[in-house]
Amino acid sequence: MSRSAYLAGPEVFLPDAAARFEAMKAACAQFGFIGKAPLDNQLTPLAHLTPTEVSREIYRANVETMRACEFGIFNLTPFRGPSADVGTAFELGFMTALGKPVFGYANAAGDYLDRVTARKIHQAPGRPATWHDENGWEIEDFGNADNLMVDSALAISGAALIRHDPHPADPPGDLTAFHACLRRARDYFARLDAPI
Amino acid sequence: MSRSAYLAGPEVFLPDAAARFEAMKAACAQFGFIGKAPLDNQLTPLAHLTPTEVSREIYRANVETMRACEFGIFNLTPFRGPSADVGTAFELGFMTALGKPVFGYANAAGDYLDRVTARKIHQAPGRPATWHDENGWEIEDFGNADNLMVDSALAISGAALIRHDPHPADPPGDLTAFHACLRRARDYFARLDAPI
Repeated sequence: MSRSAYLAGPEVFLPDAAARFEAMKAACAQFGFIGKAPLDNQLTPLAHLTPTEVSREIYRANVETMRACEFGIFNLTPFRGPSADVGTAFELGFMTALGKPVFGYANAAGDYLDRVTARKIHQAPGRPATWHDENGWEIEDFGNADNLMVDSALAISGAALIRHDPHPADPPGDLTAFHACLRRARDYFARLDAPI
Repeated sequence: MSRSAYLAGPEVFLPDAAARFEAMKAACAQFGFIGKAPLDNQLTPLAHLTPTEVSREIYRANVETMRACEFGIFNLTPFRGPSADVGTAFELGFMTALGKPVFGYANAAGDYLDRVTARKIHQAPGRPATWHDENGWEIEDFGNADNLMVDSALAISGAALIRHDPHPADPPGDLTAFHACLRRARDYFARLDAPI
């Protein structure tokens, strides 16, 4: 039986989302996995529902798919700001709490700190300098790709967040980092399945 | 025994974070709850650790605090972009998966769509128009405050995300919406504890 992977990421917002997920599923199949996209869980007709109700039904379908999958692969590329898509971050937290293995990548090689307008603040002598944004809020400076909850959940699950600057012609179509996650997942389960 | 509330939000990045959380804990106490902030779980000395290791230890402490708390209150105010802080979104997903009640607010009254540079795309006749950002990615148009996973998790847990435009003098110090969450939590547990 092939293991199933929940494919979380902002690709759901691409006009050609279905085709994008087909390419990712084909990659999963090459590694012996079954990829499941948020869009897969086709719902009963939604035409009679309000927009709010539609969004709740999509949520329920995504939660059901996460519960059914054995692990998750998360596209944590910065989305409309310096951080990952919050829907993907929510799902990473959700699958982490369920105790499922999580793998993730960002199609952006830099640190979080590099993406926020920052100035270094020198405080009292003996205290380390800190970075602050234009509104005076501190900026994390741990060398992570994103908020420490995101990077740490992945690292503690078994594989650090993979960073990669994608091909500029079609960044979401560059599956280099996605493939790297699949390799790590394959190795993870190979160790799990190995005879003692 | 008072119930304990995990206080999730970007206040951890404020220079006066400890004082901010003290004010929130005082509000919790007025409602009969014990507020627990991410900063509470004081760690063993971190001076000998690398920055990456420090961030992992903070993660572990936050996860431990979430597991120990009976419910969560989430500050989902837009942070460095149109969406909530991804650390807070991760934690919302985490506590949702644990089956703990979650309450949340945003100190921003508008819809998500209002905060993203948007243009309306009219597609083929008979298909509804959709909103796209400047890069061509679709923008959710469900009337939610943020990504549908965030709004829906709260609504399905029992209380919709509370939206409020805070006092401009000190937005993070305006606890109006935080108080509204505390009232909802009090009502939630009162119903739970009521004799049949």
